[in-house]
Amino acid sequence: MQPALEAIYHVRSDARAIEERAHAIAVEQSVEMPITAIDDDFVLGEIVGRVLGIEEMDQNQFEVRIALAAETVGQDPGQLINMLFGNTSIHDDVVLHDVELPSEFSALFGGPRNGLQAWRDRVGAGRRALTCTALKPQGLPPRTLAELAGRFAQGGIDYIKDDHGLADQAYSPFAARVHAVAAALGRSGSGQGPTRYVPSLSGDLDAMRAQIAVAAEAGVDAVMIAPMIAGLSNFHTLVKEHPGIAFMAHTSFAGSARVAPALLFGKLFRLLGADAVVFPNYGGRFGYSRETCAQIARTALAEGVGLPPTMPVPAGGMMRERVPELLAFYGADAMLLIGGALLSAREALVETTAAFVAEVLGYPYE
Amino acid sequence: MQPALEAIYHVRSDARAIEERAHAIAVEQSVEMPITAIDDDFVLGEIVGRVLGIEEMDQNQFEVRIALAAETVGQDPGQLINMLFGNTSIHDDVVLHDVELPSEFSALFGGPRNGLQAWRDRVGAGRRALTCTALKPQGLPPRTLAELAGRFAQGGIDYIKDDHGLADQAYSPFAARVHAVAAALGRSGSGQGPTRYVPSLSGDLDAMRAQIAVAAEAGVDAVMIAPMIAGLSNFHTLVKEHPGIAFMAHTSFAGSARVAPALLFGKLFRLLGADAVVFPNYGGRFGYSRETCAQIARTALAEGVGLPPTMPVPAGGMMRERVPELLAFYGADAMLLIGGALLSAREALVETTAAFVAEVLGYPYE
Repeated sequence: MQPALEAIYHVRSDARAIEERAHAIAVEQSVEMPITAIDDDFVLGEIVGRVLGIEEMDQNQFEVRIALAAETVGQDPGQLINMLFGNTSIHDDVVLHDVELPSEFSALFGGPRNGLQAWRDRVGAGRRALTCTALKPQGLPPRTLAELAGRFAQGGIDYIKDDHGLADQAYSPFAARVHAVAAALGRSGSGQGPTRYVPSLSGDLDAMRAQIAVAAEAGVDAVMIAPMIAGLSNFHTLVKEHPGIAFMAHTSFAGSARVAPALLFGKLFRLLGADAVVFPNYGGRFGYSRETCAQIARTALAEGVGLPPTMPVPAGGMMRERVPELLAFYGADAMLLIGGALLSAREALVETTAAFVAEVLGYPYE
Repeated sequence: MQPALEAIYHVRSDARAIEERAHAIAVEQSVEMPITAIDDDFVLGEIVGRVLGIEEMDQNQFEVRIALAAETVGQDPGQLINMLFGNTSIHDDVVLHDVELPSEFSALFGGPRNGLQAWRDRVGAGRRALTCTALKPQGLPPRTLAELAGRFAQGGIDYIKDDHGLADQAYSPFAARVHAVAAALGRSGSGQGPTRYVPSLSGDLDAMRAQIAVAAEAGVDAVMIAPMIAGLSNFHTLVKEHPGIAFMAHTSFAGSARVAPALLFGKLFRLLGADAVVFPNYGGRFGYSRETCAQIARTALAEGVGLPPTMPVPAGGMMRERVPELLAFYGADAMLLIGGALLSAREALVETTAAFVAEVLGYPYE
């Protein structure tokens, strides 16, 4: 079998049953039928999944490494996740922990087109962490959201993304919102710096294409997308079709998929072209550990994989008081996203934003 | 707030903390920011999620009912799942158990265009269960798969679906496969009955559209799709664009999402237009209980929801020996899908298929 994907599963199993269980996963994720009923040599030699190794991690917990034929993917991102975790996702004793992809896949999918460095270049930042906030709550009309964006810009924030709840609703249609916010961010003169807007895409592939066109027309060159809702194939198609647009990937509906976060956000989203990945920071509203967050950032930035680095964007209930701690933890290669905590400052929103920005700019990066 | 979606979550929590936890979910799935920082009346009155009830199910296990504004969905299926379980999917103490949708949603999305009855009509079946099998293993060339399909047809099976691993790979391109299988199924004279083919879609929205066009050209009027890989919005767009095509929804990559199976497969897939839903049968290779399977079938068939019924398709490691038991369990309103167990018959594939078919046709349905 050559070349192969090496999928790594963490499996909960009795020690006596693990070998059989590992083989069952290899079959489920490849031919999905009894091997004894197959007599085609190509299928037996190239397509049937192969158990490469089983390692005990803990009592009743094993790491299983399985080779799956790269040919089964047929160059399609949706089919990639189908082969890695299609039916096996239904078994609750298995987590898809990691995958080692043949180097051909880096060239095939290409990764970020406007990754780590582009986010800095676009706002004229040197080697420092970037700042980001979110427009919300949903329900506000474009005018009010644009006004809010103008105030964040006065505070000097680098990027303003839509809350992922903002879609194309009657009370705030995408096109009206994008034009209003873009106008508020300096082209109309109200902005103080190079603050950039990252509107959120929704709908089917065609709707997302139309939204990108609207954004581009308004001078916006970055968008947010939830790949697990859009579908991985559609996400990647948008990336390929819009090389000048930076894509920020959002975790929505991705958290529960029993796929290791570092694999999904850091490796797969990056492979398919995410220029930045938003993920729930440790110690916020979500249950990710420090180690999980460090792994996501490490995977998004890892060198030697034939792909440009993706910008890590820790988020989710972050407080301004934690900025020094987060900068010490993530360093310069991150975009810190603080939403609700800035909005809570209300009248003092501009000053609070400016203080957040000053802290990030003034930090002594190594 | 009017009209509203009523989302029902099952939450693991300490009894003293459940009220706060329920409110946190209502905020997370609506405005995602501190309520105290909101002063817009429309947002406070209409958009902020509202806890309608909390009921103790078991120790440290609660059912929480939350109203979410229908306006936030903006008529988009992807945004529907984003509102129901976007960020909350990341919290591992919550399962999305069910949702009660405003009746407007049935009219908006429309459900199956070719549901329960169409599957029967197309193969000339009366009120009985239908039979189905799967083409596999992947890796075989179109010619061999077509030959296999011809033998299943000789056994008199109603439907032959692609294994969900069959995509658009070099060794079996979609178009070549569909034409070969369609030709083998009787238009060329080799089939004995009205056996129909259900090829599997893959790729992005455009690729799926092109595949449906190829299928239609070959006289095929049903396709399989994995909505969680395609993206719910893209799935629904295909349904709307192709009213003459029957859509069979596959569970791939859906099993792990911590959304109750009956909700996802029976209710949401149906709402968006799944004409049939494949799901893992109890006692097969997957861990679903009898009760879960009964719920999926019940939800897919439920009357009074303003939608035509969807065909339940239990599958996954089913044995021919279990057919009487499954017919007693599911009754006439089901399509029984047996794949590997028929393929294992090898030389006796036609006879084994015929015996399966005879059993389903001869069963004394109530």
